[in-house]
Amino acid sequence: MHKNFKNIDHVTFGRGCFHQLAQTLLPIRHLNKKYCVFIIDAYFKNHPLAFTPQAEDAVFYIDVNTHEPTTQQVDELRDTLLNQKGLPSGVIGIGGGSIMDIAKAVSLMLTNPGSAVAYQGLNLIKNPGVYHLGVPTISGTGAEVSMTAVLTGPEKKLGLKCDWTVFNQVLLDPELIATVPKDWWFYTGMDTYIHCIESRFGQKNNAFSLAYGDQALSLCRAVYLGPQSGQNAENDDRLMVASLMGGLSLTYSEVGVCHALSYGLSKIKGTRHCIANCIIFQHLEDYYPLGVSEFKSMCKHHNIELPQHLSASWTETDISQMAEVSYQLPFMWEHALGENYRTLAGLEHIKSLFRRL
Amino acid sequence: MHKNFKNIDHVTFGRGCFHQLAQTLLPIRHLNKKYCVFIIDAYFKNHPLAFTPQAEDAVFYIDVNTHEPTTQQVDELRDTLLNQKGLPSGVIGIGGGSIMDIAKAVSLMLTNPGSAVAYQGLNLIKNPGVYHLGVPTISGTGAEVSMTAVLTGPEKKLGLKCDWTVFNQVLLDPELIATVPKDWWFYTGMDTYIHCIESRFGQKNNAFSLAYGDQALSLCRAVYLGPQSGQNAENDDRLMVASLMGGLSLTYSEVGVCHALSYGLSKIKGTRHCIANCIIFQHLEDYYPLGVSEFKSMCKHHNIELPQHLSASWTETDISQMAEVSYQLPFMWEHALGENYRTLAGLEHIKSLFRRL
Repeated sequence: MHKNFKNIDHVTFGRGCFHQLAQTLLPIRHLNKKYCVFIIDAYFKNHPLAFTPQAEDAVFYIDVNTHEPTTQQVDELRDTLLNQKGLPSGVIGIGGGSIMDIAKAVSLMLTNPGSAVAYQGLNLIKNPGVYHLGVPTISGTGAEVSMTAVLTGPEKKLGLKCDWTVFNQVLLDPELIATVPKDWWFYTGMDTYIHCIESRFGQKNNAFSLAYGDQALSLCRAVYLGPQSGQNAENDDRLMVASLMGGLSLTYSEVGVCHALSYGLSKIKGTRHCIANCIIFQHLEDYYPLGVSEFKSMCKHHNIELPQHLSASWTETDISQMAEVSYQLPFMWEHALGENYRTLAGLEHIKSLFRRL
Repeated sequence: MHKNFKNIDHVTFGRGCFHQLAQTLLPIRHLNKKYCVFIIDAYFKNHPLAFTPQAEDAVFYIDVNTHEPTTQQVDELRDTLLNQKGLPSGVIGIGGGSIMDIAKAVSLMLTNPGSAVAYQGLNLIKNPGVYHLGVPTISGTGAEVSMTAVLTGPEKKLGLKCDWTVFNQVLLDPELIATVPKDWWFYTGMDTYIHCIESRFGQKNNAFSLAYGDQALSLCRAVYLGPQSGQNAENDDRLMVASLMGGLSLTYSEVGVCHALSYGLSKIKGTRHCIANCIIFQHLEDYYPLGVSEFKSMCKHHNIELPQHLSASWTETDISQMAEVSYQLPFMWEHALGENYRTLAGLEHIKSLFRRL
């Protein structure tokens, strides 16, 4: 069985297209209780966006620096909305991957009873969500195009994954990523780079995922290593396309060792996804020799100093817990290592990988 | 204003995925009068496909060798269906670009009164069509992903172009293109190559169209010039992705001189689209020097002999009529030549281009 994947319904790409937001929402504003929910990265509280919500809208500025999106956070947002205003016309996420995931998850949880915890997994959602629109302001995670809203719950870090998770609309405006601080510009862009490397050097590729992944890699190379590398308008354009294409490359492929470990690190230590990937990837030369070598050149080129010797302060319990989370992601390990993955990456081996950090 | 483009809702890519057709149709079979319409290239009448329609379905084998799709043909198909069986659950096109266009157009005309002639243009369609699914069996035109169903009418060769034209579903099975005769494999693949060259060397590019177009060009080079060039399984995979990506590259760009002339040639002489492009492109060194040079290498590499000296047998009236059709495509000329296109490509100049053929 080949996957039948759901596309984003509508995509607008272009410098300044964020100004089309109000107009883009017009056709859905009559739906349900006739108000929109804006879920916005708290950064924009002090850096106002060129957009004015309508009087009836609900606006939440969310600080995503302290922790990754949680099931509890999504449940609470949903309860607040339904209790105070009823079912909205649409949910609009403006921010990075965490905000994209919260917006996607809230859209789904507005129409599915109970806690998001019950829906962590594939196709567990029963009802379509409300209309949801994503506006990425940091590029790299691919959350704007994926069918997953990754949430950390009491037991698992695992996505709400189904066709209805996919955005109805995205506005891809490269002008919005111009002000991303350099370190996050690097970590987040490297999420695309790393998942394209993991996608390429694994078992599940086909021509579709290779074509998308290779083009995303080529764009990352231009942005982070090319003669005009760095944060500039042309590279902001490229990085935004790389993020989209990197996400699409995963449609018929899978992430690998780095992401499997990264989920463990984030779940137990709360480390945010993109920097967790970078912290881990630097130590995976034996799995991805070319990718790690190029990644290190990129770090050097942009004077990025990644945290080292983290595991020195971790307890055995920490490491066991991280390894347990990581071990529970067999599709990533199988893609990376083949059918024999349980022999090649048992719990003890996974612990040894965490001790590298 | 940046274009807000409509994606195909669902995409399945993979060798053998055509076997998933019956299952893919299950969720829509209860709609309307509970039957499906299959519009299939007549080639498959003698080369049966691995699929059995249900007893209630309507199956049309259509010969697309004699002429390009016409408004009259679409109107007649629609009238036959509505008179005999009522509104179908879905329309399934199985074939090359012409069949894709007929399926898309029939889907729209089933719910829009009058002749297709009245809807040739942008956003003239009033009502969404019925569910439509495309299965390409020749790759290159990008018709599987475009928002246009190109039809030749009594006055114009022009598409029914709107969001609802886009397929609800495509099944991209590279095994289906393995048996394409070599000359058509070449001409049709060159449609992607040519529109990517036209897209790239014009005014309207952005990072999105460049990324898609460049990757499609890179795939075309592997298929037609690479060390493993030619018709083989790996290249069939690549060509199918190239066609999709080439089509998507046009979302934020435009075709150019070759397509503008090609529409004139096809309208007046009935020459099919992909070979018309090849006949013309070989003579456009002054517009696309690198592209035409590489195109000629591809012709040579595959022993493709293109028709020459066609214009010797054309009357002045023929040439004037072709030039008139071509002149009426200002968006293509403007993309290719810039604002000053009317000075650079007036009617007399366009006639001189047709005399090159």
